[in-house]
Amino acid sequence: MTDSYKPRGFAQRVDEIEPFRVVEVLARATELAAAGRDIVHMAAGEPDFPTAAPIVEAGRAALARGATYYSQAAGIPELREALSCFYADEYGLDIAPSRIMVTPGASGALLLVAALLVNPGDGLLLTDPGYPCNRHFLRLVEGRGQLVPVGAADNYQLSAELVAANWQANTIGAMVASPANPTGTALSREELAALSREVRSRNGYLLVDEIYHGLGYDAPTPSVLEVDPDAFVINSFSKYFGMTGWRLGWLVAPEAAVTEMEKLAQNLFISMSTMAQYAALAGFEPATREILEQRRDLFRQRRDYLLPAVQELGFTVPCKPQGAFYIYADASRFTSDSQKFCMQLLEEHGVALTPGVDFGHHRANEHLRFSYTTSMDRLELAVARLARVLA
Amino acid sequence: MTDSYKPRGFAQRVDEIEPFRVVEVLARATELAAAGRDIVHMAAGEPDFPTAAPIVEAGRAALARGATYYSQAAGIPELREALSCFYADEYGLDIAPSRIMVTPGASGALLLVAALLVNPGDGLLLTDPGYPCNRHFLRLVEGRGQLVPVGAADNYQLSAELVAANWQANTIGAMVASPANPTGTALSREELAALSREVRSRNGYLLVDEIYHGLGYDAPTPSVLEVDPDAFVINSFSKYFGMTGWRLGWLVAPEAAVTEMEKLAQNLFISMSTMAQYAALAGFEPATREILEQRRDLFRQRRDYLLPAVQELGFTVPCKPQGAFYIYADASRFTSDSQKFCMQLLEEHGVALTPGVDFGHHRANEHLRFSYTTSMDRLELAVARLARVLA
Repeated sequence: MTDSYKPRGFAQRVDEIEPFRVVEVLARATELAAAGRDIVHMAAGEPDFPTAAPIVEAGRAALARGATYYSQAAGIPELREALSCFYADEYGLDIAPSRIMVTPGASGALLLVAALLVNPGDGLLLTDPGYPCNRHFLRLVEGRGQLVPVGAADNYQLSAELVAANWQANTIGAMVASPANPTGTALSREELAALSREVRSRNGYLLVDEIYHGLGYDAPTPSVLEVDPDAFVINSFSKYFGMTGWRLGWLVAPEAAVTEMEKLAQNLFISMSTMAQYAALAGFEPATREILEQRRDLFRQRRDYLLPAVQELGFTVPCKPQGAFYIYADASRFTSDSQKFCMQLLEEHGVALTPGVDFGHHRANEHLRFSYTTSMDRLELAVARLARVLA
Repeated sequence: MTDSYKPRGFAQRVDEIEPFRVVEVLARATELAAAGRDIVHMAAGEPDFPTAAPIVEAGRAALARGATYYSQAAGIPELREALSCFYADEYGLDIAPSRIMVTPGASGALLLVAALLVNPGDGLLLTDPGYPCNRHFLRLVEGRGQLVPVGAADNYQLSAELVAANWQANTIGAMVASPANPTGTALSREELAALSREVRSRNGYLLVDEIYHGLGYDAPTPSVLEVDPDAFVINSFSKYFGMTGWRLGWLVAPEAAVTEMEKLAQNLFISMSTMAQYAALAGFEPATREILEQRRDLFRQRRDYLLPAVQELGFTVPCKPQGAFYIYADASRFTSDSQKFCMQLLEEHGVALTPGVDFGHHRANEHLRFSYTTSMDRLELAVARLARVLA
């Protein structure tokens, strides 16, 4: 074009939404692998297992019978029903299917709750470290994440006391994750109840990310719904059900919120993947659950191996990770630049980890996240490689 | 709970985002059908054909070989490459794959452009009538759709003159659709060029919804990219490629926008459906294209039948729909309450149509949208039924 077109700049929010730093690590890992290097991948936020065969087969069957059209904005009724039964069976909870909305991944659930609850300028208390997209969804709708630095003394979680101490005039609620990314720490029923009381006393909203439920290794992880029927729960078929690439999550909301959320879902999504929803139904069958439980056992074995091994290497892991598939390690003995350290471990030793800076600001440059989403022999190889350099 | 919990209200935007009124029509249609009534469905915004067999087979094959993991936030490279070739073959355009982002439906593309471009208080010129979600995506990020009433004299489209006349201090650009929902009208290359010049002279952004491209029945529909390399194009695998239930769209953006959009996509979506992307690759194969072109011919035959038939019934359709699968009919001879009229036609005559109120405010209550997304014999039956009541 020959005109003097100078488009206005991008929206301000763009400057405040951060990229995943691990993408740089992953891109370099791909290059190195292409050049023949052996890389141990411990940076991914997804199970290394492919989706369980019965789910895959159900997806293939749904396609074969023509489940290729739009479906209901809140999800197919069969899946909402199945999730309701899941809450009854697993938690002893009576959650009406009408309160359960299927979403395009937990990402879609986060978009819905942000759109529903957050006015411009509103703040939501979040842990730092935590899942970075939470604050970016808030920023999208002109709200803000109010990051509360949490450490070992807090089990890396918000507590009623931290909520009380950090609540501001513009705070509308708090969000926690249990088990949490990147730390793997979980909240007990009592801790959830105390959080709920504190947030309720302020007429705020309590949001709980339960996407790593089903991947707890010591004790069953309680749902916030056991102690607070008004909480918003974000969940996903990605982690325990192993369906990352299908993009399917769900949301449990108070009855009063459902009509509005369905309206939002109509406008923002139209529909979720229809065949993915029929596939997900197979996730609740006993044969599938058996596979998923075996995988959970493997994750536990890996954690039980990797946690002491990582500590042996000189990292500090003050709170035992109780779930998910992560170890958040204090690397302050080795670095004060987590991104640079990750690139160096990759470049020189072929081990891909996630830098702490992907999870917030609080001592983020002194931490790394190990994902035990690779087989035991690969974990052992990574530990052996790291032992040579860090010893 | 025994406390006096009174959560704050929902965010203000929720009141300003409207539900799809057609949902009421569809829900009642389902009830009537369940009660044994024969309903002719002409309300859907999706092709009546199932996804073409080669695409379905490619999806099944992708699942069988384990394509169940996350994939790149901007889309798998093969699909971005295939889309680049598609622009070369179909339009003679050289669009680098790096400028093409795969998105979760056109909905995902709309979310990305809104997030990228719109600051709170910014306005974007839109047609009224038009696709309602456009203004709701703007509202989501605290921008506003600036609705420009368009009628027959405007071919239901924005023009350079309308842009000039309606541009306000807070306007950041204009969005058009060609062919458009609900009117089926398209913009010529000259009209697109004039729009582009006008918007560029104001350093604004031009967004074009091209999701009904490939479904033009009179002349090839030009892409705005033929006249403006800086325009943002929203497109989809849902309509021409017939993949509604897979949730896959794409976005073509100026090179300068891509890094930022990829960052937004990482945070908002993580990934699109991986198997859907491998399936979509089959959409470009000659055998598939042949099926899609046959379906396009059927749509044209339906339009050529339905347009005069609707006019014969007493509806006014001043601008010949050139594409998509809709006829936007002026029903002012029969009603001044399009929703009520739609419910009545459904209830009494078993014909499901979409009320004009779903597409905006301008004379919306005097319009209906006919979708010719059902077979010719069903269209004939609907016309016969309507002839009895409207004659």
